[in-house]
Amino acid sequence: MKISFKNDYAEGAHPAILEALVHTNTVQQAGYGYDNYSAAAKELIRKKIENPQAQIFFVSGGTQANMLVIGTLLRTYQSVIAPETGHIADNETGAIEAVGHKIHLAPATNGKITPESIADFATRYTNYPHQVQPRLVYITNATEIGTIYTLAELKAIYECCQAHNLLLFMDGARLGSALNAEDNDIQWKDLAPYTDVFYIGATKNGGLLGEAIVINNPALADGFEYYLKQQGALLAKGRLLGLQFLTLFENGLYDALALHANQQMKRIKEAFVVNGYTLLSNTCTNQLFPILTHNQIAALAEQFDFYQWQKVDETHTAIRLISSWATTDAQVDALIQAIQSLAVTQ
Amino acid sequence: MKISFKNDYAEGAHPAILEALVHTNTVQQAGYGYDNYSAAAKELIRKKIENPQAQIFFVSGGTQANMLVIGTLLRTYQSVIAPETGHIADNETGAIEAVGHKIHLAPATNGKITPESIADFATRYTNYPHQVQPRLVYITNATEIGTIYTLAELKAIYECCQAHNLLLFMDGARLGSALNAEDNDIQWKDLAPYTDVFYIGATKNGGLLGEAIVINNPALADGFEYYLKQQGALLAKGRLLGLQFLTLFENGLYDALALHANQQMKRIKEAFVVNGYTLLSNTCTNQLFPILTHNQIAALAEQFDFYQWQKVDETHTAIRLISSWATTDAQVDALIQAIQSLAVTQ
Amino acid sequence: MKISFKNDYAEGAHPAILEALVHTNTVQQAGYGYDNYSAAAKELIRKKIENPQAQIFFVSGGTQANMLVIGTLLRTYQSVIAPETGHIADNETGAIEAVGHKIHLAPATNGKITPESIADFATRYTNYPHQVQPRLVYITNATEIGTIYTLAELKAIYECCQAHNLLLFMDGARLGSALNAEDNDIQWKDLAPYTDVFYIGATKNGGLLGEAIVINNPALADGFEYYLKQQGALLAKGRLLGLQFLTLFENGLYDALALHANQQMKRIKEAFVVNGYTLLSNTCTNQLFPILTHNQIAALAEQFDFYQWQKVDETHTAIRLISSWATTDAQVDALIQAIQSLAVTQ
Amino acid sequence: MKISFKNDYAEGAHPAILEALVHTNTVQQAGYGYDNYSAAAKELIRKKIENPQAQIFFVSGGTQANMLVIGTLLRTYQSVIAPETGHIADNETGAIEAVGHKIHLAPATNGKITPESIADFATRYTNYPHQVQPRLVYITNATEIGTIYTLAELKAIYECCQAHNLLLFMDGARLGSALNAEDNDIQWKDLAPYTDVFYIGATKNGGLLGEAIVINNPALADGFEYYLKQQGALLAKGRLLGLQFLTLFENGLYDALALHANQQMKRIKEAFVVNGYTLLSNTCTNQLFPILTHNQIAALAEQFDFYQWQKVDETHTAIRLISSWATTDAQVDALIQAIQSLAVTQ
Repeated sequence: MKISFKNDYAEGAHPAILEALVHTNTVQQAGYGYDNYSAAAKELIRKKIENPQAQIFFVSGGTQANMLVIGTLLRTYQSVIAPETGHIADNETGAIEAVGHKIHLAPATNGKITPESIADFATRYTNYPHQVQPRLVYITNATEIGTIYTLAELKAIYECCQAHNLLLFMDGARLGSALNAEDNDIQWKDLAPYTDVFYIGATKNGGLLGEAIVINNPALADGFEYYLKQQGALLAKGRLLGLQFLTLFENGLYDALALHANQQMKRIKEAFVVNGYTLLSNTCTNQLFPILTHNQIAALAEQFDFYQWQKVDETHTAIRLISSWATTDAQVDALIQAIQSLAVTQ
Repeated sequence: MKISFKNDYAEGAHPAILEALVHTNTVQQAGYGYDNYSAAAKELIRKKIENPQAQIFFVSGGTQANMLVIGTLLRTYQSVIAPETGHIADNETGAIEAVGHKIHLAPATNGKITPESIADFATRYTNYPHQVQPRLVYITNATEIGTIYTLAELKAIYECCQAHNLLLFMDGARLGSALNAEDNDIQWKDLAPYTDVFYIGATKNGGLLGEAIVINNPALADGFEYYLKQQGALLAKGRLLGLQFLTLFENGLYDALALHANQQMKRIKEAFVVNGYTLLSNTCTNQLFPILTHNQIAALAEQFDFYQWQKVDETHTAIRLISSWATTDAQVDALIQAIQSLAVTQ
Repeated sequence: MKISFKNDYAEGAHPAILEALVHTNTVQQAGYGYDNYSAAAKELIRKKIENPQAQIFFVSGGTQANMLVIGTLLRTYQSVIAPETGHIADNETGAIEAVGHKIHLAPATNGKITPESIADFATRYTNYPHQVQPRLVYITNATEIGTIYTLAELKAIYECCQAHNLLLFMDGARLGSALNAEDNDIQWKDLAPYTDVFYIGATKNGGLLGEAIVINNPALADGFEYYLKQQGALLAKGRLLGLQFLTLFENGLYDALALHANQQMKRIKEAFVVNGYTLLSNTCTNQLFPILTHNQIAALAEQFDFYQWQKVDETHTAIRLISSWATTDAQVDALIQAIQSLAVTQ
Repeated sequence: MKISFKNDYAEGAHPAILEALVHTNTVQQAGYGYDNYSAAAKELIRKKIENPQAQIFFVSGGTQANMLVIGTLLRTYQSVIAPETGHIADNETGAIEAVGHKIHLAPATNGKITPESIADFATRYTNYPHQVQPRLVYITNATEIGTIYTLAELKAIYECCQAHNLLLFMDGARLGSALNAEDNDIQWKDLAPYTDVFYIGATKNGGLLGEAIVINNPALADGFEYYLKQQGALLAKGRLLGLQFLTLFENGLYDALALHANQQMKRIKEAFVVNGYTLLSNTCTNQLFPILTHNQIAALAEQFDFYQWQKVDETHTAIRLISSWATTDAQVDALIQAIQSLAVTQ
């Protein structure tokens, strides 16, 4: 059996979550998110981001969260600006178009959008009424290629959005990894003033499933629960989601798990750098994109599972490695040893 | 704390499921439903229904299953015939219309549709091209009011569908309860020849979440997984669903849990009948609709949670009681005792 | 060639419209509804209804008008209450569901909805968030069976809507016929205070095509032109629509044409009544539903085209006859003569 | 009053169309496209393209035609490849996304897509089931910038589509202008074997409104009329569309009108070239994009209406001039004289 560094959802859930499930199993609770665990989890998240007004909704996955948020916030003729590398652009089988909205693909640098290109799109569609009207900016943090936004970047983007009457929505499928990255300077409490909506991913950070959609301005949440139900996103046993977020946010577990994943990847990164490899981008989260020769890739693939991400030239390709809350020291040690062997052989 | 007979999703999951989660937790698996547990579970279900061709997909909930199945099977101008008491008609916040399809509300007797009314709708819309074209019949088994279809009824409906070029889709949110009901004569293997698509509900029969959509004719499943992804219905950790169905179908657990729920309700039913109460409908599944005076309801409500279902006359209302895989003998005993006390007091 | 009483769109346009088209043909005008004729026509309509705030949009047909209005006014989880005989219910191939909204079918008396049934639907869906929320009432005037609302009825419905936070939308495909009916007491200026949105049909009253959507409260029109364009409803040569409405409203032509149609049908009605026939409903507009024997129908059908509307008993069926702005005295005379012959033969 | 060269829909209809409307006005005809004129017009078009199997549908406008064709041909998870300058990409307020489909923006050279970029998109989305699946290629002829496809280009694109299981759809809003261009080598009969669907625009070539959608393979037209009705695209007086196409195709009028427009623009083009101006693209249809200084533009704008199309450098901008079937010699003479004056002044 190979060791997988393909993604951060290869295992089950953090043991504390399973323990909580076992512990509360026979307690009868109201359905559809009106259980006590969900209420307590929402309260913890509100405190964590220091926004007592925030409206919070637990859903099953990232694509679902993206389509629900965008679907509820936009009118039919409004559109989304997203970096061309954004998850909604290429990896959600057209979920956003399926709820009726065009995505404008903005140029991305290191996976990130800039205020300049937001402003460009925001002011471009003046041929009334023949053109869609951008109304929302979608960003991902950490990005799809493992980079993160700085607080200054986030503020600049949010201010640009405000200036152009755009909402800012942050996809936080790997938010824990971003906020616990070595180079990060965004705090949890910055997410309230500098985004309109964001979500906190648990699927990729220790949960069985679950993303917490946080709507900072309650007016934007009007009718959202009807929409959740209509779109098949409301679980009868909402307790399953609530209890997981309660466990993750009760005692800092969410941050700790993300930090662990980042630190495991940091060790791997150092091994590549020390052995003279180039990286496709300089990441400090739980993703790494080292550039290898095709022979080296074949050698690594005997022991490990990972994605070939992007061809670099005739003989080199960048691979993608991902660590998770579940990545053990032994797994990292095995990979580092393999990296060192590679260096010798090719 | 009151004892809840409000629904069959008030508790967590059957302990065997939690044990399986714990046991497999650190095994790395492929994502999005391509894990080993899902594969094994699908194989078990195919054997159970004796249809090796069946295509099976695990999703999170009943409303989601309904909109996905109907959305994938119909063209834009096609419509659904459903009994007026059907779950899609009134309790899914317009999910079917939200994917673009009209629901024709057929008269229901004991929650069940008849071939006559199917034929009526199937032949009514002749004003080409000004009228939608019925293409699918939706039924629920067990029904929303706890009744079940007989094999003869199911066959007659399916033959009527065939005669009118209609697909037959069975909502099986409580399929276990139906197939394990005392009066039931439908076997698992009858579901392959006499439905086009059905689903097997786990949320209400021992799972944390999950419905298994079974498409008997593989041609109808073409492209379905793209659609699942697009509609936000594909879980990254599909293992969570696969493992539950594997546990439920490995050793007859699914049937056993449903049988347990039915038997608990049978004891409750007998208590009402013995004490002279009238029932709104004669059910043999895990739902019961006894008719009580408002004083009796108030008395019961001090100890128990349940829904007031339907006003019968000025002084009487039918309540809804639901048992589940988790309903204990002690809970049933307490309710029976309360029923007996009621009889005395009013 | 038979004489057609099948509908009110069997001919082209009133000659004054064709003359206006010829007369203005080479004048260059701005596209997409920003021509001078459209501006002038809108101003005339605003004056006619005495609502200077009204926002007016010209579209091509009735189904298009219905889906655009309902699509722009409702949020995803909101629904429409309509009489079961309403055009959107059965004769628009599911256009309203195709834009995502459920239609609740209210019982209709003489084609009309009552405040009581509106109130019933408005208060019925309390199972939050599992049920759609009614937000709009759709009525047609004249109705699909040729009847009309009285001012008192309209006021009562509007007040009921206000009381339940519902919008009122009047389908006016045959509005001219209604407002110029003998028994009518609704004036054009009543349409502003007692509806939120209505449209004025020209297709069935002398135009080649065209319905004027009138949004009484400008706030409800926000973004509507983007939606028109997106839904393919914005004609490049909007002048074609504007010029027709200008011609129809410049000098009372619209009312005069509708009155003509009504008067022609009145003569036909009298012929049936005098000769002892029963009518399915007592209409005073341009539609009539006399009940005939099947032999009589066959005899009439040798000379005339019409719809068989509704079977009444084993030997009788109600037919539908429609007159229009174009119905000539000679055509009516021929029909009356035939009616008189019928009476003798059977 | 300025002379408008802004577009080809500034006037009414060719006089022969108005005459036909007047001539047939009182003839009673069946509604919804089942009139005799529509039948005859469809037959003429089938003969013109030498495809007796073709299914033909008349609709009101180009955006409507695009959304209807794409909406009926694609399943939910399928997408469209279009040149980045395509009309559906930027000038239809997201109509294609509103029916649920993503548009992939392919690089365009002279407004045209290449087989290479089609193949690139067709093979790129392999991450099953996380990516939309391209199923249709959209091209415009003449293009949005006045260029045309050669027969060799069309064949190469169609063969590429066939090789990748893609349908080819040609937007023919200005098809007449393309097929009657000086450099054109595509014949009407080539449109049957080398496209799957195309439409013939009348709105911009002498009609009041109307596009004829031609579906070469009848299997692709299955259920299309239901969809037309549902989307509000079916006119009650379909005779209005049928009669126009009958008039345009009865005696070569359609080609003659397009040729006229092209020839008028050819004279204008020569005037610019002779006077030393540069053109943004080398067009031979009814559109021209001369590059002028801002002073020159201001001077021209005193007498003429046109669009400023694209900034070229600090002092120069390309304008767009469009001629039509209605452009008179006198209008062209006036423009040529102004061009000559320009050359002197700046």
